[in-house]
Amino acid sequence: MAFDLARSTDVLRRTPPTLQSLLGGLAEPLVRGNEGPETFSPFDVVGHLIDGEETDWMTRARIILARDKEPKFEPYDRFRHKARNKGRSLTSLLDEFSRLRASNLDQLQAWKLTPAQLDLTGIHPKFGRVTLRQLLAAWVVHDLGHVAQVARVMAKQMKDDVGPWVPFLPVLTDHEMPRS
Amino acid sequence: MAFDLARSTDVLRRTPPTLQSLLGGLAEPLVRGNEGPETFSPFDVVGHLIDGEETDWMTRARIILARDKEPKFEPYDRFRHKARNKGRSLTSLLDEFSRLRASNLDQLQAWKLTPAQLDLTGIHPKFGRVTLRQLLAAWVVHDLGHVAQVARVMAKQMKDDVGPWVPFLPVLTDHEMPRS
Repeated sequence: MAFDLARSTDVLRRTPPTLQSLLGGLAEPLVRGNEGPETFSPFDVVGHLIDGEETDWMTRARIILARDKEPKFEPYDRFRHKARNKGRSLTSLLDEFSRLRASNLDQLQAWKLTPAQLDLTGIHPKFGRVTLRQLLAAWVVHDLGHVAQVARVMAKQMKDDVGPWVPFLPVLTDHEMPRS
Repeated sequence: MAFDLARSTDVLRRTPPTLQSLLGGLAEPLVRGNEGPETFSPFDVVGHLIDGEETDWMTRARIILARDKEPKFEPYDRFRHKARNKGRSLTSLLDEFSRLRASNLDQLQAWKLTPAQLDLTGIHPKFGRVTLRQLLAAWVVHDLGHVAQVARVMAKQMKDDVGPWVPFLPVLTDHEMPRS
């Protein structure tokens, strides 16, 4: 499937209401349960997505569009949300994510990016030159990966309750070694 | 986390609006893309969940509650939706799933199940005796597994667009051998 900016924006706009439906008002054990040490709970995922809005995707797009000689991205801090969101409620994080995402997508659309701009590149700290098109596609895939993660992590909190169904519900045994 | 009927019902009620947010009005290549032969597209998943409402979870719960001497479940047809939904639109399937789920949950709540009823058992065609509690927990986990699958399958349609990000977006390489 060739990259399509309007379609990508459409998917990005769906993430806040999707997470609102899955998580808004959910019981605490499901909100805070995770897959083990160093893994994210649904609460952590929403914080991580907020970090992405504030420090990652659009910040990097701006670096690319500025066309400096050395358009280097800052390394991304996967655990920024841990200290930032201490004491916050999930409801307020979901609202904040919705606001930040809407504002970023308004900005993205206002740029009216051309195919030539989508071919411009920046320098990723881990893997070097990437195009703006690849960055925007990665933003979409990153969202969907975390939606999948939220559903999987919720499911795993109920693993002990399903008895002999465990081997027939693959979501319960996905990512036994954490990967995201 | 010990099984909790109210909490389980709460999660089951979230699946239709979650899928509506993720999929309602989505572009066809994302709705119909899958992970290879014999795997489900998001369109197929919604059909499969409808099959569950019509033939699986509540039907089996009724068999358990009837307390016959041989409370055997019928085998479940994972591909019933393929013929059933030919020519249907995703919008109409999402609406149908919402209606069926709401009606099933109204029925479930009307039963006012007691802990003793949740301990009653039925006979699963593959793995024998299961309790009503395990059946209801499996229904919830099954939903969440398919929500995760929808997000993963959507993400994979964009795998070619993210360039060097592939190894850093684990959702793109999950389930390279189909498991659900």
